[in-house]
Amino acid sequence: MTAKATRLYPLPPREIRAEGIYEDLELPPTRLGDSPGSPRPYVIINMVASLDGRVAVGGKSSLIGSEVDRRTMRNLRSKADAVMIGAGTLRSERLSLGLDDSSRGQQPLAVVATGTGDVPLQSNLILGEGQEVLLLSPAGFSVTGGFSRCRDERMRRLGTSECEGPAGEVDLGEALQILKGERAVELLLVEGGPSLNHSLFSRGLADELFLTLAPKLMGGATDETLTVLDGPPLAPGVGSVSLLSAHLFGGELYLRYRLR
Amino acid sequence: MTAKATRLYPLPPREIRAEGIYEDLELPPTRLGDSPGSPRPYVIINMVASLDGRVAVGGKSSLIGSEVDRRTMRNLRSKADAVMIGAGTLRSERLSLGLDDSSRGQQPLAVVATGTGDVPLQSNLILGEGQEVLLLSPAGFSVTGGFSRCRDERMRRLGTSECEGPAGEVDLGEALQILKGERAVELLLVEGGPSLNHSLFSRGLADELFLTLAPKLMGGATDETLTVLDGPPLAPGVGSVSLLSAHLFGGELYLRYRLR
Repeated sequence: MTAKATRLYPLPPREIRAEGIYEDLELPPTRLGDSPGSPRPYVIINMVASLDGRVAVGGKSSLIGSEVDRRTMRNLRSKADAVMIGAGTLRSERLSLGLDDSSRGQQPLAVVATGTGDVPLQSNLILGEGQEVLLLSPAGFSVTGGFSRCRDERMRRLGTSECEGPAGEVDLGEALQILKGERAVELLLVEGGPSLNHSLFSRGLADELFLTLAPKLMGGATDETLTVLDGPPLAPGVGSVSLLSAHLFGGELYLRYRLR
Repeated sequence: MTAKATRLYPLPPREIRAEGIYEDLELPPTRLGDSPGSPRPYVIINMVASLDGRVAVGGKSSLIGSEVDRRTMRNLRSKADAVMIGAGTLRSERLSLGLDDSSRGQQPLAVVATGTGDVPLQSNLILGEGQEVLLLSPAGFSVTGGFSRCRDERMRRLGTSECEGPAGEVDLGEALQILKGERAVELLLVEGGPSLNHSLFSRGLADELFLTLAPKLMGGATDETLTVLDGPPLAPGVGSVSLLSAHLFGGELYLRYRLR
């Protein structure tokens, strides 16, 4: 691919290879006020949305962004020690949480958060070579060495009462600490869905939002409208962000925001 | 106000007065393929949204954008022959459809589209000096010379069967033609809500979208989530747009898109 993208912000503008968006980022950033002694990983969320805020069509997000957006997603994954999604996202479409080309580095740990145990790993999760999977359930979490073990051992355990934590939800604060403490995850990339995003933002557990704004309007019935966040209104101030950078390719805006 | 904004796109970037965003626009544009013989006005839609796609908080849109965004809205109004909203938007908050300073030009015609006749003009519409109001109802439309006449005559007529058109909706295509043919409206500015936007987009009756993207995440229960569009999924291709310009002020992005 020799197409060019433009970094519009910060100034001055700069032309770069389209496939190089976010390729040179230092993540976690050392200059942006991260705390080296933080008990949790640096958490970035990456989403693609239409101009009318939709992040899925018929439950699937894969139809919104361009090929360059998907490349950008993989550039972020290549910097992440772990890539996390909510189980609802996995139920809605077959997807990978890894790198296409494992020669670019080790596959990130695939993390799936579930409150119910309804996690179609076998049918919907495409694993990279040697990629490990970790399921977060309300009772805690467990590491498996691979796809078959994960399905056979973890899913059976999810059916037990061990997984019923308070309110039936994963304790994300604790989970993130364990990810860092026991799995050495310094950079965690979250790719939705909207409920998981909301849980992280509302608890102050997310540091940055990478939002690709696709040049399209989609519409959709209100009862199936999924936006970047699904959950109660955020308290004033919680949702304020600052723009770190903006890239443009073919009408698609790649926006990077830091939470205050 | 001496604050500065930056036009990020098209290149090269240019620093301008923040209050001057869209001030110098030529609308309708003569170079963007508009057709002088078109039977309807050139239609632009202006909305402000959060990063998670919300266009209202508790039904009100006024809390999302900054003071500069509101100034930008007035810059667009000053170019419009008429400013239109749906009655639902008027029911949710008290608002003006005019200019603060009528010395900048004649007040635009205020247009409210209603399918039900439930239009709280008296309580919620703040009229500028000499500003006229026009109600679009399913049976057609009528012009009134002022606030009292509008309320007294028009609203009474809305209660009659005359207003029950097909499907109980305003025939927007016909309404736009009458606006141009009988009221000389060359530029129509639409300020939502999401249902009216959707009706226009889905029928190919909108030419541009001005979208202010506020640097905040809002959340909100799904059943009260309002995004830029509220209605069935758009047919493929209908919702594709192209980016015309991007301005930045204080983390707020002012995006101008043309529908293809």
